[in-house]
Amino acid sequence: MNKLLIVGTVAFDAIETPFGKTDKILGGAATYIGLASNFFNVDAAIVSVVGEDFPKEYLNLLENKKVNIEGIEIVKGGKTFFWSGKYHNDLNSRDTLITELNVLADFNPIVPEAYKNSDIVLLGNLHPMVQSGVLDQMTTKPKLIVLDTMNFWMDCALPELLDVIKRVDVITINDEEARQLSGEYSLVKAAAKIHAMGPKYVVIKKGEHGALLFQGKEVFFAPALPLEEVFDPTGAGDTFAGGFAGYITQSENISFENMKNAIIYGSNLASFCVEKFGTERMENLEKNEVNARLRQFKALTQFEIELEE
Amino acid sequence: MNKLLIVGTVAFDAIETPFGKTDKILGGAATYIGLASNFFNVDAAIVSVVGEDFPKEYLNLLENKKVNIEGIEIVKGGKTFFWSGKYHNDLNSRDTLITELNVLADFNPIVPEAYKNSDIVLLGNLHPMVQSGVLDQMTTKPKLIVLDTMNFWMDCALPELLDVIKRVDVITINDEEARQLSGEYSLVKAAAKIHAMGPKYVVIKKGEHGALLFQGKEVFFAPALPLEEVFDPTGAGDTFAGGFAGYITQSENISFENMKNAIIYGSNLASFCVEKFGTERMENLEKNEVNARLRQFKALTQFEIELEE
Repeated sequence: MNKLLIVGTVAFDAIETPFGKTDKILGGAATYIGLASNFFNVDAAIVSVVGEDFPKEYLNLLENKKVNIEGIEIVKGGKTFFWSGKYHNDLNSRDTLITELNVLADFNPIVPEAYKNSDIVLLGNLHPMVQSGVLDQMTTKPKLIVLDTMNFWMDCALPELLDVIKRVDVITINDEEARQLSGEYSLVKAAAKIHAMGPKYVVIKKGEHGALLFQGKEVFFAPALPLEEVFDPTGAGDTFAGGFAGYITQSENISFENMKNAIIYGSNLASFCVEKFGTERMENLEKNEVNARLRQFKALTQFEIELEE
Repeated sequence: MNKLLIVGTVAFDAIETPFGKTDKILGGAATYIGLASNFFNVDAAIVSVVGEDFPKEYLNLLENKKVNIEGIEIVKGGKTFFWSGKYHNDLNSRDTLITELNVLADFNPIVPEAYKNSDIVLLGNLHPMVQSGVLDQMTTKPKLIVLDTMNFWMDCALPELLDVIKRVDVITINDEEARQLSGEYSLVKAAAKIHAMGPKYVVIKKGEHGALLFQGKEVFFAPALPLEEVFDPTGAGDTFAGGFAGYITQSENISFENMKNAIIYGSNLASFCVEKFGTERMENLEKNEVNARLRQFKALTQFEIELEE
């Protein structure tokens, strides 16, 4: 079984959407990525940090989903990273209400010995120095390194972010962030500039409008599944990245053709994530539901036109 | 050869985008639809009205593109419909600066005798009373009636619009207009409500984010081609509708499966339309360019995942 190393936050979220609000619930990029990786035949492990206040049941949940949690440090007397946000009515934008870094402020990631030779590494959203720190610990060169990030790090740690971007094969980023990072409005031009920063593959996430995969002049598009209702977008981007990396890890194939399948899987899993608050839908999702939705994605996108010569 | 009857404006446009501005140039929904229909093996005719100020060369252009213009009334001493608009920096929204209805104000459409038995009718954007007036003149029931409209008519002629919507098979409408017409934010819910108003097929155009085709619970998605630069979006929606109707007319197949191909063709042609100001790109577009871009659409959307049982 191929190894997938996941780095990212394991956290508390408090979420408000037009449909309701939650107290502190389980959240964090690595949590969503780990839950997504469970749908693939992979040996996944999370590197992260939590405080002593983090419930044992949340860690058990991840273990029950076959995610190795050896690399999740528990800081004695520490408090877990907490994020609170409120979504606007269209669910496409949100305001951050609270960000308490807590134990994340001084996090020094330690990669478990058994995962220093992981096949695939997914650097989930975190300080770029932490992302780099994980790469420094790898004893063999991973077959593929995927990086997810956000505008926050462009604003406050751009040089460090550019350093780690240089070292990765794939970057996943949303449309507004791609524009900010590249200074280009056109996503085609933005992808070209981001290619030039290092990554061979650029994935631009457009939320309800799907995702684009670029490699040089080649481009592939995975739509989001049109849903009756999006309940809570939190974690959708991380779930997308987790589905992408999980599929690649399982299939051992890093060709552009196979990456097309991987972003379809990412889009598939993300379409479930948004159906309930927080991680609830992903915790209870069954493999047969994912397969059924894959049929929907085929019906949604595949067509038969004979090409004229 | 199957007959396609096109109703819509033939007009002057003056356009301003972040890339430049034009004087009065050739425009109008029926003009763009007619130019798009030229890429299919169909017998197309336009029903519209212009003033005496309308240049003969513009009419010649349409005739050279094999569009029958017998049904374009020229009003002696009249002035042609004129629209002027300015696009915002993101090109997704625009302000209307001038709307001079002129000869359009008292337009009574007359369908040429030879086209009263047309196979397909495309009711392009115009007053819904004019759209209904054209349907009243058909001597045989068309195989498919397609209606395109806009928010302007929802604001000022809603009862008449709802009357004509009842009579059509397909409605093409943009996302904001679908929301306005249905009162639903979710496009899946909006499509269901619009189905209930009459049309069996609902096409929701999302501009740079592609287009959705709904029939009951079935849905298909055609992306827009990611472009380095969108120069001028004017006419893209009409070109899309013209490509859709032109393909259906040529293929004589009104199944849902064939409509998937039709909206891919619509999206294909619209991707050219936006590359230059006004009708310029469509006037000079070659069939082999359209075929080459069809290959790009396939590469953009088609994938190979084996479904598990």
